[in-house]
Amino acid sequence: MQTPPAPTPGREFVLTVSCPDRVGIVHAVSGVMLEQGLTIVDAQQFGDASSGEFHLRMHLAREGAPVAAEEVEAALADVVAEFGMTAAVHDLAVPRRVLLMVSQQGHVLNDVLFRVGSGGLPIEVPAIVSNHEDFRALAEWHGVPFHHVPVTRDTKPEAEAELRRLVDTYDADSIGLARYMQILSPQLCADFPGRIINIHHSLLPSFKGAKPYTQAHDRGVKVIGATAHYVTADLDEGPIIEQDFRRVDHRMSPAELARVGQELEAMAFARALRWHAEHRVVLRGRRTIVFQ
Amino acid sequence: MQTPPAPTPGREFVLTVSCPDRVGIVHAVSGVMLEQGLTIVDAQQFGDASSGEFHLRMHLAREGAPVAAEEVEAALADVVAEFGMTAAVHDLAVPRRVLLMVSQQGHVLNDVLFRVGSGGLPIEVPAIVSNHEDFRALAEWHGVPFHHVPVTRDTKPEAEAELRRLVDTYDADSIGLARYMQILSPQLCADFPGRIINIHHSLLPSFKGAKPYTQAHDRGVKVIGATAHYVTADLDEGPIIEQDFRRVDHRMSPAELARVGQELEAMAFARALRWHAEHRVVLRGRRTIVFQ
Amino acid sequence: MQTPPAPTPGREFVLTVSCPDRVGIVHAVSGVMLEQGLTIVDAQQFGDASSGEFHLRMHLAREGAPVAAEEVEAALADVVAEFGMTAAVHDLAVPRRVLLMVSQQGHVLNDVLFRVGSGGLPIEVPAIVSNHEDFRALAEWHGVPFHHVPVTRDTKPEAEAELRRLVDTYDADSIGLARYMQILSPQLCADFPGRIINIHHSLLPSFKGAKPYTQAHDRGVKVIGATAHYVTADLDEGPIIEQDFRRVDHRMSPAELARVGQELEAMAFARALRWHAEHRVVLRGRRTIVFQ
Amino acid sequence: MQTPPAPTPGREFVLTVSCPDRVGIVHAVSGVMLEQGLTIVDAQQFGDASSGEFHLRMHLAREGAPVAAEEVEAALADVVAEFGMTAAVHDLAVPRRVLLMVSQQGHVLNDVLFRVGSGGLPIEVPAIVSNHEDFRALAEWHGVPFHHVPVTRDTKPEAEAELRRLVDTYDADSIGLARYMQILSPQLCADFPGRIINIHHSLLPSFKGAKPYTQAHDRGVKVIGATAHYVTADLDEGPIIEQDFRRVDHRMSPAELARVGQELEAMAFARALRWHAEHRVVLRGRRTIVFQ
Repeated sequence: MQTPPAPTPGREFVLTVSCPDRVGIVHAVSGVMLEQGLTIVDAQQFGDASSGEFHLRMHLAREGAPVAAEEVEAALADVVAEFGMTAAVHDLAVPRRVLLMVSQQGHVLNDVLFRVGSGGLPIEVPAIVSNHEDFRALAEWHGVPFHHVPVTRDTKPEAEAELRRLVDTYDADSIGLARYMQILSPQLCADFPGRIINIHHSLLPSFKGAKPYTQAHDRGVKVIGATAHYVTADLDEGPIIEQDFRRVDHRMSPAELARVGQELEAMAFARALRWHAEHRVVLRGRRTIVFQ
Repeated sequence: MQTPPAPTPGREFVLTVSCPDRVGIVHAVSGVMLEQGLTIVDAQQFGDASSGEFHLRMHLAREGAPVAAEEVEAALADVVAEFGMTAAVHDLAVPRRVLLMVSQQGHVLNDVLFRVGSGGLPIEVPAIVSNHEDFRALAEWHGVPFHHVPVTRDTKPEAEAELRRLVDTYDADSIGLARYMQILSPQLCADFPGRIINIHHSLLPSFKGAKPYTQAHDRGVKVIGATAHYVTADLDEGPIIEQDFRRVDHRMSPAELARVGQELEAMAFARALRWHAEHRVVLRGRRTIVFQ
Repeated sequence: MQTPPAPTPGREFVLTVSCPDRVGIVHAVSGVMLEQGLTIVDAQQFGDASSGEFHLRMHLAREGAPVAAEEVEAALADVVAEFGMTAAVHDLAVPRRVLLMVSQQGHVLNDVLFRVGSGGLPIEVPAIVSNHEDFRALAEWHGVPFHHVPVTRDTKPEAEAELRRLVDTYDADSIGLARYMQILSPQLCADFPGRIINIHHSLLPSFKGAKPYTQAHDRGVKVIGATAHYVTADLDEGPIIEQDFRRVDHRMSPAELARVGQELEAMAFARALRWHAEHRVVLRGRRTIVFQ
Repeated sequence: MQTPPAPTPGREFVLTVSCPDRVGIVHAVSGVMLEQGLTIVDAQQFGDASSGEFHLRMHLAREGAPVAAEEVEAALADVVAEFGMTAAVHDLAVPRRVLLMVSQQGHVLNDVLFRVGSGGLPIEVPAIVSNHEDFRALAEWHGVPFHHVPVTRDTKPEAEAELRRLVDTYDADSIGLARYMQILSPQLCADFPGRIINIHHSLLPSFKGAKPYTQAHDRGVKVIGATAHYVTADLDEGPIIEQDFRRVDHRMSPAELARVGQELEAMAFARALRWHAEHRVVLRGRRTIVFQ
């Protein structure tokens, strides 16, 4: 699978910082980056008045010799200790590896694969896992290994064990549920916090669970949408990353709502993957901060 | 209060028809209208496959001598009987009279009054009723009688009796709740079916009840909205007429969501009033058909 | 290429009618349809006050024995003559055959092929023509014949002759320019009126011609869009069928505008193809009526 | 006119900085703010790759004794010199004074006055100037002085002289053209750069000049909008601050487009005023940077 032109290792980083809000954070952090020869390409911050927390994302670039992300992290150690920070430095040359799962509707999968293949989404897709065979040919055409892992109520433990094995084998750091219509076990959700992204075909918290387009039709809403969210053990209750939406009217049957909704699902999921891949999403309880 | 230029009595009508769907309805109805010398200015229909019902709205105009709406209705009597129709003919020269209710937030009220006063919304506002005095001056500046009807848990029956009296006095055919923060009694809701329109400050069915902007903030949604709906005895469960919506992000506090939402509330409410006034809304159970 | 489930021949039709507006059109037309045993599934009309013209689209269904579209047209002949109509009856079992053209950007092509292949867009794509080889593999994977027709300033006549030959060979009734970056000759445009659909990557009439995303960036607009339109000899001046749009801001480079715009292009083009295929678009001078 | 609750003088500031982009800016600026006892409440930056410029907006707050904006500016003098900065410090307790101008359409004026009066827009409106008398009563009801300054082609110099006198008298720092249908002279535009905001009723650069809704109708666009922009001597060519937009269709006459567009005009204008008032808009040639 063709990947987008990557940054050179050790030249571009994203720094993410969270800590209690107080005077001097930006000055302290920017001082360390200055010493490390790192220019601030872009920076966003958010002081959350309701929690007293401060969050920062810096996109950094280096002119001189490359440097390791660990080295930058180490240089920040004193500041991290002083301010009680959670901090991480990510080398942008190392793309996130997102294993994709799908069932029998392929519009989201097709959209992601085309974007990745044409350089439009900065992730790697090391493998595709499905409980059906429908999209083996599509996966293989894109040069992505495809694994059929059937699952029934009785075999879910075995299926999830196989999934965990595949995540390890392919060194995937995240899982993208591109219309995978099985509920993951609470333990699996708990073991990958902030690392599994689902696309649900409603504007959550409206219309959780099964057949959201039918629910939307029955309730007679005038707008439908799709929600990309991190998966937690509470079904359709995880922190929302992105939502897209469109006006609809009484003439549209559930099937027509589904057709229109497919576009929304693909767009919301792709944006969520991008922001996740670019370390723009900070997870705080039931909410996300998305530094666009 | 300045009103928009009215059509001449007996020259422009809206016909609304609902009946079981079968062959020949349009031909039969259009035949009667032809005999009555009425041109079809516009027509919309909807065959609801899920219920087997057919719904029709015709905007009709007459070149020759004016005619009474009752006369047109009478001419249609045979067709009504033959097809088992519910049908009504409305003279567009007779604007709907919508009594408005408000509490202490005036943005929706101000918006409606400006629209009506400048000819932008084809309704009459015969009176404004409020459980507070805040908007007496605004009402009076627009030349609309203002009635302060305070209400507590204990005095709700008396307050509603007074409201019913005012509806009669002013010959209002509908009630518009322009951010009226009191819950109406089930009996009152039942006595005015399809005649009370509320604006709720969320994208229903999300965030029913109190403080929807705070609920939206806590859930971390990426879109907020407002819902104009007919009031039924089930709080915030009535049939939706219109919704408007806008993208938001983590930086917005509940107060900022409320500020943005005010625009959405005013727009959704004004559109719902317009469509109600122009006899564009057909009420079917929990859903509406809106012939735009 | 897998196609959507087709209606049975002779059971579902679209009737389109345009004529000078006068009393009795709907009654006359619906009378003929009643005699032909055709139920009105859906109907939309538009009386254009500015031109005095009346336009009608009826979706018709037949319970009994199938009938030929030509037979229905013949039955309407007297009414057509009486009212001075332009009228056509289309059998919905006969899908439109849209030959697609593309250059070196494949996002729109990929989107259309996936939709058609998964039953989401009711057209047939008999062939793909390109002035480059880039998408031969994609076309072949979808089972669609691919023709490389290179074109330079000097060889345009030969290239267009070859295109006309392919249109004939494949019995295509329309041409879809899915990001085909060559200007067609005035003669070709004139020979296929209302049968060539282009997607332009701006909100026309803003930013005609080359590099619209760069133009949009330089002008500092806060919204970008895409426009699907019928092609005429006046570049980017043809009648608009559909536009989609999204909010942008100063942080987005022309390349990022292009990335966001790709989604808009694909959606606007797909909707235009759908409406064209379902005979929902009436072409009137520089404007279109779209019966949704 | 009731104004929103103001911040205490000398406690909250906005710092705006523009300079050539180089290493160390954020560290240097945040160091001075730290010395001045100023916390960064919020900060946004933009490194413009196309121009090599860096732009920064900081919202600052002070816990201890109040301080004058001039004092903060003086403390920054060395950094300003070192980096070749344009910098300004604005005390948020001093609201911008925006003189409003209007002709005969009052929807934008009414919207702004209601927002300011109810605390929803942090500006002061010291006076309203109009070439017509229509909105004297509205202005006076809101307690804002109203000045009728008629203007003809021959008297424009005198009218503009009177306008300048009123700007001085009321100590207005900006002018808001709330549907003022006269073209200002090039000299007046040049004398108030970045201080006059107009609302144009189209999605610029489409449909400049007169009757944009009629132009939009004739061209058959499927989306209309409104554009708030700084006024320059080039009519409708000034830098865009904000645009709002909505989907429309063939059924809408120019008058109906105008009715829908009124909402868009009011919203885009109010947002532009807010961002201008909060020192969020940086003017760079034909483009604006808006730090939301």
